[in-house]
Amino acid sequence: MKIDGTHYRSIWREPSGEVRIIDQRWLPHDLRIVPLTNRAEFAVAIRDMWVRGAPLIGATAAYGVAVQMAADPSDASLAETYDILNETRPTAINLRWALDEMMKVLKPLSPADRAAAAFARAAAISDEDVEMNRQIGLNGLEIIRDISRRKGGKRVNVLTHCNAGWPATVDWGTATSPIYHAVEDGIDIHVFVDETRPRNQGAQLTSWELNSHGVSHDLIVDNAGGHLMQHGEVDLVIVGTDRTTARGDVCNKIGTYLKALAAKANGVPFYVALPSPTIDWTVVDGVKEIPIEERSGVEVTHVQGRSEDGRILSVQISPTGTPARNPAFDVTPAELVTGLITERGICPATTEGLAAMFPDRAGRR
Amino acid sequence: MKIDGTHYRSIWREPSGEVRIIDQRWLPHDLRIVPLTNRAEFAVAIRDMWVRGAPLIGATAAYGVAVQMAADPSDASLAETYDILNETRPTAINLRWALDEMMKVLKPLSPADRAAAAFARAAAISDEDVEMNRQIGLNGLEIIRDISRRKGGKRVNVLTHCNAGWPATVDWGTATSPIYHAVEDGIDIHVFVDETRPRNQGAQLTSWELNSHGVSHDLIVDNAGGHLMQHGEVDLVIVGTDRTTARGDVCNKIGTYLKALAAKANGVPFYVALPSPTIDWTVVDGVKEIPIEERSGVEVTHVQGRSEDGRILSVQISPTGTPARNPAFDVTPAELVTGLITERGICPATTEGLAAMFPDRAGRR
Repeated sequence: MKIDGTHYRSIWREPSGEVRIIDQRWLPHDLRIVPLTNRAEFAVAIRDMWVRGAPLIGATAAYGVAVQMAADPSDASLAETYDILNETRPTAINLRWALDEMMKVLKPLSPADRAAAAFARAAAISDEDVEMNRQIGLNGLEIIRDISRRKGGKRVNVLTHCNAGWPATVDWGTATSPIYHAVEDGIDIHVFVDETRPRNQGAQLTSWELNSHGVSHDLIVDNAGGHLMQHGEVDLVIVGTDRTTARGDVCNKIGTYLKALAAKANGVPFYVALPSPTIDWTVVDGVKEIPIEERSGVEVTHVQGRSEDGRILSVQISPTGTPARNPAFDVTPAELVTGLITERGICPATTEGLAAMFPDRAGRR
Repeated sequence: MKIDGTHYRSIWREPSGEVRIIDQRWLPHDLRIVPLTNRAEFAVAIRDMWVRGAPLIGATAAYGVAVQMAADPSDASLAETYDILNETRPTAINLRWALDEMMKVLKPLSPADRAAAAFARAAAISDEDVEMNRQIGLNGLEIIRDISRRKGGKRVNVLTHCNAGWPATVDWGTATSPIYHAVEDGIDIHVFVDETRPRNQGAQLTSWELNSHGVSHDLIVDNAGGHLMQHGEVDLVIVGTDRTTARGDVCNKIGTYLKALAAKANGVPFYVALPSPTIDWTVVDGVKEIPIEERSGVEVTHVQGRSEDGRILSVQISPTGTPARNPAFDVTPAELVTGLITERGICPATTEGLAAMFPDRAGRR
């Protein structure tokens, strides 16, 4: 999407052949574009979260393999690269998937043919992600168009939680894709952005990308969404997901569940935007079966931001010695979800709905 | 309550006659106790939020009148003091009430008798607040005792939002009073403290007072409560309130409503602790009738804390130029409230329940 009028992806190859990324650690305060020129740099960029978001991690790993193949296309180098990159973020499902894709293409080839094929497959992985998100956007656009029509063209207010935006993917984002498509369609749209404590992805990333692209929005604290829905100020909630179960339970950033409850209580449609690889067909009951990562309490007791003198630093908000609990995700039961916006279309968050949309994949436990 | 083993109130008179407060602007990082020696200092302390919380503001204003009477007990001085203090926080209902009380006692007296009478009435106002909160605590204790008994003495987990603790009152607090009473009763109790963005009263005040008194607790982000309730980790929610309607709708810090929805969805009892002066008998439908204050967006875009080098400063968490909405309170409809813990006892959050508990006050619109 656009940053101050110029179109960007979150990872791309320059005409010179150089791969570049936006180093997201400095957002929203600084836009730092850096080249990744060797395998070690790719590994650091993934591990230290210069890039984040499952789709973008996958694309970055794919380009990492390609860059290494240009330097040393041997069998040993390929095998080692797989291992090194695979260990950077062991839980990211797209990372493993992208590396397997690269392996599938490269292993049968002679070393001399590997670099070109690797760059081609990495570019295709990026393009496939962009296309999938574009389809999600077109499908979600219909929901927004309906609401806009029903409101006689008056401003459509969308609430989102966390960042399922383009910096988490190669382009478009998932939850944000219908929003960008609505903007392109000329629909009057406004986004309420949950700040998303503890890591503030809403404040740091979603606000930044909407601001940069020029989409009308307001940052709100995570506490405010219920009140806004109660007063008719939200027409629609769209969030992303880290993992969706075969019956449509949605695991997403902590706090999503509270917004789903408020949406249900106030008759606000609650949609989840997801590329189908996010569906975990082996899991049914999300609340019982999905283990929730507990992260360091320091994320709760400390907040990062920019001080008046321009430094990025962390401040402690609670007394020294106060312990903190920090579950990173929660599960929204399917019955609170109005529908799932996938690249194939919108389906109900039910076993039957998902199976009808993905007959080729459902039922494989 | 106690700070590292020593008992404190939030305002008190030294044997020397000096009135002292805890300057709460520096909590949780610094415990600064300051004397208030003249009317101007009292006015600043209330206006600039060295003290906050309706009951404490009332008690502080009362002592402010007393200190001024010791300096100049004339009719002109009394009238002027009423106006000056009344203007410090025009919306705080207890401020006006306390000043009216002082006026009622002092106006008929001859100037020579005023100082002593004023100090006596200010002390009584403080003591009455303490006693009311103590009664709330004893009534709420029964709920906690029941849960403890049902759990066979296993740890009772309470979740609270914002700060309805002793630093908002003269002592005990409202929502915290049942908790402190449970601790004194030897009940195994643990408190989940919502950080309460945007102003972080949970992180800054509730954590601090529980930490100081030695009550087991965990700070959590406002997003986490739903997940904890979903997984049976919360036995009970107790919050305070800024205003309760005649039918039991509860206006409290933004985000309370989301916790009430989660409590209802997960069968967790949701109680509101309130001194009866907080009931607004003139209002019925809280969602429709109570205007919600919208505060500065800077509270959302910036967070205050202590930097590594020990300075208290504010950091910006969102991009420059991102606008923010900041509704400060929300209304929890009565049907989500299990019961109201008042100084007279516990009653259902219904018109009938409140009228039966306060037959002397109900129905006065």
